[in-house]
Amino acid sequence: MGNPGDRVSLGETWSREVHPDIDSERHSPSFSVERLTNILDGGIPNTELRRRVESLIQRDPVFNLKHLYFMTRDELYEDAVQKRFHLEKLAWSLGWSEDGPERIYADRVLAGYINLNLHGIAMNAIRSLGSDEQIAKWGQLGKNSQIITTYAQTELGHGTYLQGLETEATYDATTQEFVIHSPTMTSIKWWPGDLGRTVTHAEVLAHLICLGARHGMHAFIVPIRSLEDHTPLPGITVGDIGPKMGFENIDNGFLRLNHVRVPRENMLSRFAEVLPDGTYQRLGTPQSNYLGMLVTRVQLLYKGFLPTLQKACTIAVRYAVIRHQSRLRPSDPEAKILEYQTQQQKLLPQLAVSYALHFMTTSLLQFFHSSYSDILKRDFSLLPELHALSTGMKAMSSDFCAQGTEICRRACGGHGYSKLSGLPSLVTQAIASCTYEGENTVLYLQVARFLMKSYLQAQVSPGSIPQKPLPQSVMYLATPRPARCPAQTAADFRCPEVYTTAWAYVSARLIRDATQHTQTLMRSGVDQYDAWNQTSVIHLQAAKAHCYFLTVRNFKEAVEKLDNEPEIQRVLQNLCDLYALNGILTNSGDFLHDGFLSGAQVDMARTAFLDLLPLIRKDAILLTDAFDFSDHCLNSALGCYDGHVYQRLFEWAQKSPANTQENPAYKKYIRPLMQSWKPKL
Amino acid sequence: MGNPGDRVSLGETWSREVHPDIDSERHSPSFSVERLTNILDGGIPNTELRRRVESLIQRDPVFNLKHLYFMTRDELYEDAVQKRFHLEKLAWSLGWSEDGPERIYADRVLAGYINLNLHGIAMNAIRSLGSDEQIAKWGQLGKNSQIITTYAQTELGHGTYLQGLETEATYDATTQEFVIHSPTMTSIKWWPGDLGRTVTHAEVLAHLICLGARHGMHAFIVPIRSLEDHTPLPGITVGDIGPKMGFENIDNGFLRLNHVRVPRENMLSRFAEVLPDGTYQRLGTPQSNYLGMLVTRVQLLYKGFLPTLQKACTIAVRYAVIRHQSRLRPSDPEAKILEYQTQQQKLLPQLAVSYALHFMTTSLLQFFHSSYSDILKRDFSLLPELHALSTGMKAMSSDFCAQGTEICRRACGGHGYSKLSGLPSLVTQAIASCTYEGENTVLYLQVARFLMKSYLQAQVSPGSIPQKPLPQSVMYLATPRPARCPAQTAADFRCPEVYTTAWAYVSARLIRDATQHTQTLMRSGVDQYDAWNQTSVIHLQAAKAHCYFLTVRNFKEAVEKLDNEPEIQRVLQNLCDLYALNGILTNSGDFLHDGFLSGAQVDMARTAFLDLLPLIRKDAILLTDAFDFSDHCLNSALGCYDGHVYQRLFEWAQKSPANTQENPAYKKYIRPLMQSWKPKL
Repeated sequence: MGNPGDRVSLGETWSREVHPDIDSERHSPSFSVERLTNILDGGIPNTELRRRVESLIQRDPVFNLKHLYFMTRDELYEDAVQKRFHLEKLAWSLGWSEDGPERIYADRVLAGYINLNLHGIAMNAIRSLGSDEQIAKWGQLGKNSQIITTYAQTELGHGTYLQGLETEATYDATTQEFVIHSPTMTSIKWWPGDLGRTVTHAEVLAHLICLGARHGMHAFIVPIRSLEDHTPLPGITVGDIGPKMGFENIDNGFLRLNHVRVPRENMLSRFAEVLPDGTYQRLGTPQSNYLGMLVTRVQLLYKGFLPTLQKACTIAVRYAVIRHQSRLRPSDPEAKILEYQTQQQKLLPQLAVSYALHFMTTSLLQFFHSSYSDILKRDFSLLPELHALSTGMKAMSSDFCAQGTEICRRACGGHGYSKLSGLPSLVTQAIASCTYEGENTVLYLQVARFLMKSYLQAQVSPGSIPQKPLPQSVMYLATPRPARCPAQTAADFRCPEVYTTAWAYVSARLIRDATQHTQTLMRSGVDQYDAWNQTSVIHLQAAKAHCYFLTVRNFKEAVEKLDNEPEIQRVLQNLCDLYALNGILTNSGDFLHDGFLSGAQVDMARTAFLDLLPLIRKDAILLTDAFDFSDHCLNSALGCYDGHVYQRLFEWAQKSPANTQENPAYKKYIRPLMQSWKPKL
Repeated sequence: MGNPGDRVSLGETWSREVHPDIDSERHSPSFSVERLTNILDGGIPNTELRRRVESLIQRDPVFNLKHLYFMTRDELYEDAVQKRFHLEKLAWSLGWSEDGPERIYADRVLAGYINLNLHGIAMNAIRSLGSDEQIAKWGQLGKNSQIITTYAQTELGHGTYLQGLETEATYDATTQEFVIHSPTMTSIKWWPGDLGRTVTHAEVLAHLICLGARHGMHAFIVPIRSLEDHTPLPGITVGDIGPKMGFENIDNGFLRLNHVRVPRENMLSRFAEVLPDGTYQRLGTPQSNYLGMLVTRVQLLYKGFLPTLQKACTIAVRYAVIRHQSRLRPSDPEAKILEYQTQQQKLLPQLAVSYALHFMTTSLLQFFHSSYSDILKRDFSLLPELHALSTGMKAMSSDFCAQGTEICRRACGGHGYSKLSGLPSLVTQAIASCTYEGENTVLYLQVARFLMKSYLQAQVSPGSIPQKPLPQSVMYLATPRPARCPAQTAADFRCPEVYTTAWAYVSARLIRDATQHTQTLMRSGVDQYDAWNQTSVIHLQAAKAHCYFLTVRNFKEAVEKLDNEPEIQRVLQNLCDLYALNGILTNSGDFLHDGFLSGAQVDMARTAFLDLLPLIRKDAILLTDAFDFSDHCLNSALGCYDGHVYQRLFEWAQKSPANTQENPAYKKYIRPLMQSWKPKL
């Protein structure tokens, strides 16, 4: 933890002493927590920079988070705008660059508490879809906050299916303008963040119509509020869509456009252009429009999903060594709940998922950086694989984070339901991510189409050199492997080669199985579309197995590279084993189905899994400490570094307005209710 | 729907016409929805009475629910107290009895929107644990609302494990009083509903200490607020525990007792008594204290969990025939999302769960009524089974409702995240139920102990007449069955005998497996407590399978009894099949493990499952209509009877205060932010 003094809560007297129940967990660590933190950060300089940024934020009263639990929705909105305003001033005064590491570290602390996040997403889209001149113009205006933008794609009646959007942009050659219009109730833009009360411009996705011909979806920059007084511009109806399950601070909004005119230059034109006379010129593929979403999805992995699960793990694991309940044997005092196998089974796999996703995200980012620059130069050869990988990882990571944060929350019992635990807001953030930026089932099915295509491609030329090489991530589909797992003992299941091969085998089998089901239906006379729909549940399962396999293999390879860190390698190897085995056990039917594993082997895998739990349990607090979240950023009465759970719950609860204000319901309702019976007595 | 005019929204012009996309679903129904509603209600008179109560409530402006989405926590509290006050007046004026059906029907509409629910739970506990005189005295006071009570068991540091509670009640023979005291921070009562700002009395669970001897937990009635002016009484510190993930209207509270004295008569004494000189007399078993919780758990099944899932299903299925997305084939218009196999796979099993739990709850209630009267007469022979059944069903039902409501919510895409959909509050209610009234993992492990005991009892005397007969619900453990499933086609898996036997087989195998694992460990020298802990994950799995088996068998038997309703029997049979098969497929590893099913048979079961989806899809709207929830009670922009989803979302959103008030953040932060760059340009 470097200097723990920096990490713990400020100004709370009990924090001077760490609770013995959590202190003992940190005695004689089996590895260097600080070193693991450095590895997660990608090097010591990063850790140092991150801590400097966090420390700045933590010491600034505007960035105080604690009082947020008692605020109304309106107050939360105002507070989150203020925090963004303050952060921008800070960034400017310190010279932070627009996409520099300092901002990422600031986001890690303030995610969920600041608004105007869509501005960044809209700027991504401009950089992906805009011409160089557009990037220069709008990028500069956006960077300077002279305009504030949002990305307006989703409509009241239309979401993930881009072609279904109804908003129209009709080119008028006489004025060289686009006329942007919402023709129906269902075409009203709905959901864009910061749209309700804040932004000045929207990047509107609309059907382009030129000279009577429809050319599909394109992005248009549309001014919606006056830069003078912030009132809606002519033809614009804009507002807030109302309360939500989480993100209460954000003013997700609606936007109805009534024949709003924007100049020809406002269509983003890296991949398509409309000439002054209305001639349409395509410069990219039809998929180009998805590039903005692709970049956003990759960013979400490391900026959005992962910290959410890591925070939930930190809170739940820390609470599990402070909370005592029941006795392991009648003569003992009540045990820490983390001693119970069922509690370990809940929490430790979430810790393993956190690390698995960390390494997967790191690898994906590398691939993204190497392939995306080619794509912007209009070399689209790696786009299908990048799309499949980012799509699959978006779906799997958000699913696992949603599931994991809720498991962590529930593992804290009643207190996990209190907002003061910090867990409810992590859960409501995580479950939203399963829907936004592409609904997960839809995304998995896109992966499945890629897999079916790849499988068929691998079949065309088995053994011989294929005409077009398979994308790297699916090359395993062409690799022969034995039809039975060779493991003979529980210990064999701790061999990374054994479980990685098992996952490759099962994933490949499910992809084959799904493809064959579709083909069998088509041979029986069902058309290709019905055949796809009638087998989509099977394809979904295959896509999930494929994603799981990729993360297992990637985790294994990441651990192998840590040869010069033997202690850390050992503990991460345990987590990698747990991750792979947990997946095998929760999907054991897929492994037993054709006898790749026998029932006896599944029992061995279970033994290996259960034996791992107490091993990892010993390191559990250290593994969460290594994420290095400050108390300020966790904002949790249950999850602070010092373990003083009950004092914090009690003190924080006192601040509830219910305890500081009078109760008007007493005189209005409670007293009359109690007195209404008096005449009868 | 009887007269649909009564069920749909009032005063909304578009409701006069039903949306054609949902109207077409109701054309030429394959069964009588009204008749199914009667069956669910338990007879036509019940349906009629229920509708009369609902109609009364719906027409009363105090019971308006729509504006709740925009209220603050304080406003919600006040509103929920007002609604309770108003309901009590209504009940009194109409002569509704305290536990009569009218109140249950009123709860079905208003659950989650009215406070003082703990009052009923506390009254249950008095009726379970109190002597006849105590029931007469406190029951009357409670019934008349002369006092308002809560049930105070959970403490800041202690929950489900009753023996771990720290609150003490020390008998003082000189004054014939109990001195109730919270000796530590962790012993502060924490969580009781209505405690924070409302109740006058608390039923406090505390360790009884008489003449220096400790006698375990007992319940004491403790006055905590003045009946004159509602201020806390001497020695009482009481308040609100702060904001939560849901139930925002409820003032869950804390209570610290500082040597508070109550008379000897305030200890509930049906099963234990303290004589004036301090002599302790036990009249029941040590388990008697759990009776209050037992009654509450049974009530929660039908009053709490089930309607939550039914409402979520109604909303999500209705939305799924209005929402269109993507095309099944390029030439088609966009399809209703319910046409997609993956959407059917999400929603239809939840519908099946709703019906399975309905019939299970009905059976459990019958068993409860027949056995509970014996228990109150101190015949405890059926208590272990009643405890195991109610515990297992509480855990399974709340798990399934939590999972199911969230699946329904997510299946509505982005709009499911809007509070206006009604789904977020159903989800946050459902997930809370996995923790309160006994944390589910703890409950499942109690079932597991009962199962291990029963299994060993069945082994003692296989074939011969056992000394003590096995409880009815576990008799199947002693029944021999074939080691292989005889099914040879997908159609065979639609045979109730086939899947019920499969579930019985697997449940019995898992119970045997878990027991043997524990015994093997013990034989190897591990003590019984460690052996239990080290196999608890395996026991957990067995307990879940057992509960699933019970619901499958019960559903099968309930459908068999509907011989005189062939159309309804057919459609419910489909649901029963789907319920059983869905469970087999999501746990296929357990069925494949020892070859009871082969891989080919699992594929057959999957085919049977997938073939059922389009069959049930045809009846899906009718099956949710049969739950007969009024629009008022669903309070959902997505789920209304008429299907006018988008108009409602749009109109309701306009009412958000964000749209009717000025935005103070503009002048304070947004304008300064945008202008801060001007000097640089």
